[in-house]
Amino acid sequence: MPTMNRQITLAARPQGAPQESDFKLVEAPIPAPGEGEVLVRVIWLSVDPYMRPRMARTGSYARAVEIGEVMVGGGVGQVVESRAPEFQPGDYVESMGMGWQEYAALPAAEARKLDPGMAPISVALGVLGMPGMTAYFGLLEICDPQPGESVVVSGAAGAVGSLAGQIAKIKGSRVVGIAGSDEKIQWLTGELGFDAGFNYKTAKSYTRKLRELCPNGVDVYFDNVGGEITDAVIWQINDRARISVCGQISQYNADQISTGPRWLGQILIKQAKIEGFLVFRWADRYPEAVRQMAQWLREGKLKYREQFTEGLESAPRAFIGMLRGENIGKQLVKIADV
Amino acid sequence: MPTMNRQITLAARPQGAPQESDFKLVEAPIPAPGEGEVLVRVIWLSVDPYMRPRMARTGSYARAVEIGEVMVGGGVGQVVESRAPEFQPGDYVESMGMGWQEYAALPAAEARKLDPGMAPISVALGVLGMPGMTAYFGLLEICDPQPGESVVVSGAAGAVGSLAGQIAKIKGSRVVGIAGSDEKIQWLTGELGFDAGFNYKTAKSYTRKLRELCPNGVDVYFDNVGGEITDAVIWQINDRARISVCGQISQYNADQISTGPRWLGQILIKQAKIEGFLVFRWADRYPEAVRQMAQWLREGKLKYREQFTEGLESAPRAFIGMLRGENIGKQLVKIADV
Repeated sequence: MPTMNRQITLAARPQGAPQESDFKLVEAPIPAPGEGEVLVRVIWLSVDPYMRPRMARTGSYARAVEIGEVMVGGGVGQVVESRAPEFQPGDYVESMGMGWQEYAALPAAEARKLDPGMAPISVALGVLGMPGMTAYFGLLEICDPQPGESVVVSGAAGAVGSLAGQIAKIKGSRVVGIAGSDEKIQWLTGELGFDAGFNYKTAKSYTRKLRELCPNGVDVYFDNVGGEITDAVIWQINDRARISVCGQISQYNADQISTGPRWLGQILIKQAKIEGFLVFRWADRYPEAVRQMAQWLREGKLKYREQFTEGLESAPRAFIGMLRGENIGKQLVKIADV
Repeated sequence: MPTMNRQITLAARPQGAPQESDFKLVEAPIPAPGEGEVLVRVIWLSVDPYMRPRMARTGSYARAVEIGEVMVGGGVGQVVESRAPEFQPGDYVESMGMGWQEYAALPAAEARKLDPGMAPISVALGVLGMPGMTAYFGLLEICDPQPGESVVVSGAAGAVGSLAGQIAKIKGSRVVGIAGSDEKIQWLTGELGFDAGFNYKTAKSYTRKLRELCPNGVDVYFDNVGGEITDAVIWQINDRARISVCGQISQYNADQISTGPRWLGQILIKQAKIEGFLVFRWADRYPEAVRQMAQWLREGKLKYREQFTEGLESAPRAFIGMLRGENIGKQLVKIADV
C-alpha cells in the first residue's frame, strides 16, 4: 500500500464558471484512522451541482469549503483498515464525506456499507444513493404526482432529473423533460419513457414549447435549474400545482442574485405550492427508498446511465463538464479499480 | 319603496391606480327576484383588494368585470322580498355577490343569513366574514404558527393582516407587522398586541428593520403585499419557514409584471414552503372558523376596527383609498341605515 495520499483542494473561489485553476492537486500522508474510524481506498467519486455553491465564500445550506481544504463530495470505496467494529477490511462503503482524494479516514457513522451483490457499487452514488433519494423523496413527498397529471422536470437528463421523471411515469403521470441537447431529449423520450421533451438551448420560446407539450397545463414541476426556464413553467401551472425546488443550477455561477419576473401573483391565483428541500430531511427513510428503487431497477421500470472520467486529477474536469451539462445521467470520477 | 336602483358600473379599465372616472353611477329598475331568489336592500358594501385584478382585462382567479357591468363585491343587507323558503322579509344576509348597488336580487344559495344578535351585521364583511376566514385559514392551515415562532405579517393594518397577526398571537407566536403609517404601527402594537412593527414608507432598509425586529429570523410570513417587502422578508427566513401568499397588493396596479431578485435558491437551502390560496378552498369549514373567531371576539382576544364612507356614490373613493392604504382595519361603504 502506498503511503502518500493525493487530494484535490480548493485553490481559489471561482469567479463565474469554475476553472481547472480553481483546484489544486496536492499530496499528503495517508491518514491513520482514529478510534471508531475506517480508512477507505476511494474507487468512485461523485460530482454534483451542490458542490458549486459550497465553493462560494457564503457556502450554502452547509458551510463553505475553505481555500486549501479538500473538496467535499460523496464517494464509494473499500475499507483497508478498520478501527470500528461495524466494518471489516474489504467492505465496500459509500459516504457523503469522502472528499476528492484517494484515501479517506471516516467516522463509521458517516459510512454506509454496500452489498456489491445487489448492484454495481457505483450505483450507490446514483440511483441507489443521494441522487436517487433526492428524486424519490423530492418528487413523491412534495409533489405527490397523480395518474394523468402533467409533470415537468427541468435538468431532466441529469442524475436526479432522469430519475424524478421516471418515478413520475411509474406513478402514471405524463412527463415532459427539459434538457440541453437533442441527444439528451432523445434519451429521455426514446429510452426512459418520457412522453415528450425539448432542448432549451434551441427552443425559440420556452412558453410556446410548454404550451405545445403540456396542452392541459402543468400540475407538477420538479425544478433543478431555476432562472428563465422556471419562470416560463410557472406561467403554465394549473390550479393546486406543486413545485419541488431541488436545484437552481442556472444560478450557481452568478456572482450576484439575478432578477426575473415576480410571479407570486400567479402562485396565489393558482393556489400553488412551492417547496424547497434538502434530501437529508428524509435520512431516516432512505432504506425504504433504496428498497423501492432497487425493486424498480430489477423490474426494468427504472433505467440509469453513468459516465466517468479517469483518475483523481480528472475530477475538476468532470465537475466543470457536469456544470456545463456535458453529462447524460450520472457523472462520476473513477479513482481506482474495484 | 323606491322603484329605481342605483348601481356603480365599471366605466373603463384602470391604467395604473384606479380613478373615480373608471366608475360610473347609473340607474336601473329595481329587479324582481326570480324563483328561488331574494331581493335585498343593501346596507353595507365591502371594498377589498381582490377587486382591482378583477377590473383588468385578464381578470384573476375569476373572470374580469366587463365594461358597463356592475362592480363585483360582497355586502350585507336586509331581505325585502323573498321567493326562497329559507328567507323571510326582514332577514339580514351577507353575500359575496351583492355588487356595488342599492338593491340586489340574489339566488338564495349565494346568501348567508346573519344573526344580528350575535354581532353587528357589518362584522359579516370583516372579522366574521371573508377577511376573517382568509386570515384564519390562510394562516393556520398553511403556516401553522407555533409558540415562540417569529411571524411577520405584511399589510398588517388591513382587514386581513390585522386579524392574521392577532391569530398568530393567540397561538403564542411573536408577531411583527409591516404597514404604511406610524399610526397603523401604533394601533398594531398598542392595541392589537403585535410585538413589533415598522412603517415601510419611512424605513430606510427593510432588511435592517427585519433583522432588528426579528433577530432570530422569520419562521412564518403572511404576505398581503408582495414586491420589495416580500423580497426582503424572504432573505430573513429560517429553516422550514412557511409563507402564505394571501395578496400581492403592491403589484395590482402594474400594467406589466415587475421584476425582482430570484430567491428560489433561498427557498431551497431553507427548505421553505410557499403556498398561495383563495379562501373559498375552505368554504365548507367556514362555520368552524366563524364559531372560533366569534369566541375570540367575546373573549377580547381579537379586536377589529372599521371605517366607512357614506352613500353608494362614495364606493369608488372608498375603494381607491383602500388601495392606497388610507384605511386602518376594515374599509366599508355605508349604503343605507339598518
